[in-house]
Amino acid sequence: MNPQARHPSESMVIKSELVLPNDTNTLNNLMGGRLMYLMDVVGAICALRHCSHGVVTASVDNVSFKAPIALGNILTLEAKITRAFHTSMEVHIEVWAEDVLSRVKTKSNEAFFTFVALSADKKPLPIPEVIPETEREKELYAGALRRRQLRLILAGRMKPSEATELKALFENL
Amino acid sequence: MNPQARHPSESMVIKSELVLPNDTNTLNNLMGGRLMYLMDVVGAICALRHCSHGVVTASVDNVSFKAPIALGNILTLEAKITRAFHTSMEVHIEVWAEDVLSRVKTKSNEAFFTFVALSADKKPLPIPEVIPETEREKELYAGALRRRQLRLILAGRMKPSEATELKALFENL
Amino acid sequence: MNPQARHPSESMVIKSELVLPNDTNTLNNLMGGRLMYLMDVVGAICALRHCSHGVVTASVDNVSFKAPIALGNILTLEAKITRAFHTSMEVHIEVWAEDVLSRVKTKSNEAFFTFVALSADKKPLPIPEVIPETEREKELYAGALRRRQLRLILAGRMKPSEATELKALFENL
Amino acid sequence: MNPQARHPSESMVIKSELVLPNDTNTLNNLMGGRLMYLMDVVGAICALRHCSHGVVTASVDNVSFKAPIALGNILTLEAKITRAFHTSMEVHIEVWAEDVLSRVKTKSNEAFFTFVALSADKKPLPIPEVIPETEREKELYAGALRRRQLRLILAGRMKPSEATELKALFENL
Amino acid sequence: MNPQARHPSESMVIKSELVLPNDTNTLNNLMGGRLMYLMDVVGAICALRHCSHGVVTASVDNVSFKAPIALGNILTLEAKITRAFHTSMEVHIEVWAEDVLSRVKTKSNEAFFTFVALSADKKPLPIPEVIPETEREKELYAGALRRRQLRLILAGRMKPSEATELKALFENL
Amino acid sequence: MNPQARHPSESMVIKSELVLPNDTNTLNNLMGGRLMYLMDVVGAICALRHCSHGVVTASVDNVSFKAPIALGNILTLEAKITRAFHTSMEVHIEVWAEDVLSRVKTKSNEAFFTFVALSADKKPLPIPEVIPETEREKELYAGALRRRQLRLILAGRMKPSEATELKALFENL
Repeated sequence: MNPQARHPSESMVIKSELVLPNDTNTLNNLMGGRLMYLMDVVGAICALRHCSHGVVTASVDNVSFKAPIALGNILTLEAKITRAFHTSMEVHIEVWAEDVLSRVKTKSNEAFFTFVALSADKKPLPIPEVIPETEREKELYAGALRRRQLRLILAGRMKPSEATELKALFENL
Repeated sequence: MNPQARHPSESMVIKSELVLPNDTNTLNNLMGGRLMYLMDVVGAICALRHCSHGVVTASVDNVSFKAPIALGNILTLEAKITRAFHTSMEVHIEVWAEDVLSRVKTKSNEAFFTFVALSADKKPLPIPEVIPETEREKELYAGALRRRQLRLILAGRMKPSEATELKALFENL
Repeated sequence: MNPQARHPSESMVIKSELVLPNDTNTLNNLMGGRLMYLMDVVGAICALRHCSHGVVTASVDNVSFKAPIALGNILTLEAKITRAFHTSMEVHIEVWAEDVLSRVKTKSNEAFFTFVALSADKKPLPIPEVIPETEREKELYAGALRRRQLRLILAGRMKPSEATELKALFENL
Repeated sequence: MNPQARHPSESMVIKSELVLPNDTNTLNNLMGGRLMYLMDVVGAICALRHCSHGVVTASVDNVSFKAPIALGNILTLEAKITRAFHTSMEVHIEVWAEDVLSRVKTKSNEAFFTFVALSADKKPLPIPEVIPETEREKELYAGALRRRQLRLILAGRMKPSEATELKALFENL
Repeated sequence: MNPQARHPSESMVIKSELVLPNDTNTLNNLMGGRLMYLMDVVGAICALRHCSHGVVTASVDNVSFKAPIALGNILTLEAKITRAFHTSMEVHIEVWAEDVLSRVKTKSNEAFFTFVALSADKKPLPIPEVIPETEREKELYAGALRRRQLRLILAGRMKPSEATELKALFENL
Repeated sequence: MNPQARHPSESMVIKSELVLPNDTNTLNNLMGGRLMYLMDVVGAICALRHCSHGVVTASVDNVSFKAPIALGNILTLEAKITRAFHTSMEVHIEVWAEDVLSRVKTKSNEAFFTFVALSADKKPLPIPEVIPETEREKELYAGALRRRQLRLILAGRMKPSEATELKALFENL
């Protein structure tokens, strides 16, 4: 094991927020873009902790917003690193919204963000390995290759025919 | 033709911004989350104009950030509706970064956002049709079905085997 | 036991933040007022969760800032309710600052905030009891009476001679 | 008299603000944390003026918020230095809230903030003396020693038995 | 004298601010637009106080910015009502910038803002008269007619030939 | 023709915005100062593009706000350079407000801002010439001399008797 390798629990991040007036649109719901801003901050803190260097967001996977989140709700964002590739790392972010009066807490959405560590002269740096421990962490670690292939195909940097990991998903097309 | 149907040019939105200190991370680059916030605002204005109702962000497709954008750069965001489905509409957003001294303007990234129009009691509303005019608009209109299938599969709401439009992309897997 | 009584762990809140340029003074350190703003937000979320009603900040006890916190540091704020009085509740807030490069995490400061729950017509509401579980929670619960007396004396609403709990602290004066 | 010594009136600061939507909680009242942020800014300006150097907040004494302040109210904050110690200075901050329609102006709260001046290499700098002039300034100057002792005791940096100035307050316990 | 008439000193407003990173452009100077935002807030508070009603900005006279204001400077804005017309009032705003280290305080700029008071159904309301007291207040009161004529001409709502008060200024053209 | 000379269309800027809660006053209308902030940003981007250097705002001509702009409206700001003088340039800014439901778009106001380009050591730099092309651009170019004279007179830097261009406007006084 790489001496620098770290467990996801070492860089895990939780961020709670109140939905304030300026976070909302004309329907008094949290704006999707404000939520993505918060997801990026929590993901970046997780990546900063894992690699101990300045990071930039390289990509954001498909995000879908299930239900509107209202003014005055409590948001909880949780970020956990899933896997490191040579110079990039994937972070899994989950979001819950909680209504104060009813105490009902609902999973709002989740997404995978990819970050790259940069040196002072803006060169990508190698990322410490990730050692998953729990069953959930191992699943997310295993799925990371497949998500990476989809990301590369969607960015036009890999041909679908080379995406061997994705075959499991699309083999019946 | 539906009397309400509209052309993409009728709701097109341009938004220019200066990258300010608080928009940047410790490497003095624009934070990815701040850019996604701006993309969501420009996409929402486009959707508001097309359907004349309050809207919420329903999903954001995969976004990749090619090159860091520096403090003091000029950002230009452009949003254009591509296609309406029954109660949702897809908006294509492109972003350019421009260095003031060198006058070099670079395409930074692009993404597809999906919005839903809601009535005052939060029920989804039907969306006016989109009538593409230019070649580019027609291509984006045609590709929207395929992107929608990928979105539904990734959200776990469609089986890959039903995604007939996606076959063109993955048929050689 | 009051059926509404709750454990501190049920309303505990964690909030992580990045120190951004606009949070800092001319020495590139986090402004004390910005930190108090964040402490109030995390304390209010904790109080909202404990009592399921809108809350207002009633008082903030003495806060001292040990060491400057630098631009780019990661902040972690943690809030836990200690005790409920008739219409107010005390929340304990702790703050850590973490340097990304050195991975050194330092306790920055802590404070006790008091919140009051208000009905829609701005009348104070009774607060559910707090049932401490851990040793630390029991200590904080026990100390709450003493801190409340000091608070009342400092606000001119109790005479020092009536502050029986405070005697332990000042008996040798 | 130290040639650098200055009167409180030379560094006095007034700051008026409007309570805007994003300053408020779900009850449409000014958030306590937002008010503490403003108090810190006005106190820091006062300290900057007194010592002509960059300053950091060292501590904030007990603050209690008497009545909620509503959206749209006018806030007036006033900061005046009370006394300088070797490398720290105490600033007294008072806050009033004013209802526009009724023209009623109410004292909302007050607090003592302590600031330290730092050199470019973050070493504490000596602070010019304060020469009180009015009766009120002399009272605040005299009380500063007592408040300082309470602050040191609460921060665990002085034993209650050494707090000779505090005796006046607690002698009947 | 109209019983509602008020002196300029009754509604005078002072607002001090620190120039923070996000207030500055790429040259580390305060952005003109940020200063105009602050001038509008201080002017609006003054107008709110004079007329005890919600107000909107009706016009801003020519503003010129003499010298750049640096990051970390202390700003002082002062607003004083000069004269009321039937449903509008003119407010004079002056701005000073102060360098912390050198203690040099420079008049940065000044401007006249005009505000209108609106009822809940957005109808303009009559404004209480202004009774100037000092020599300076009387001069500003007298000049207000001339400035109002220039404003009306520039807005295309008065012919230059009708601007009898302006003649003093332009009579030698 | 100066090889550096540029057409207004080369630096033209469009900026769309949504009116959010914190942009509004207690009457739920956009604050005048917030609009002037946005006008300054869009004007500065236009000036940055024309001269490829850091710029500061030198002056803002008379602005009048015709009708209140409501929360939730879409703002469109458009900035176009009109003419360059030796070390300053004039930018024309127009603003429209659009109601989402009624699709009614109204011209809200317009103004002329003047910017100066500064070198790294804060010396004014020569500005590339402006070559107007359309009829409207030529009119704005021609009127710039007259507006500049009025600006100089109002700033006390030109005598009315020297303002030969202004005579056309005031000749019948």
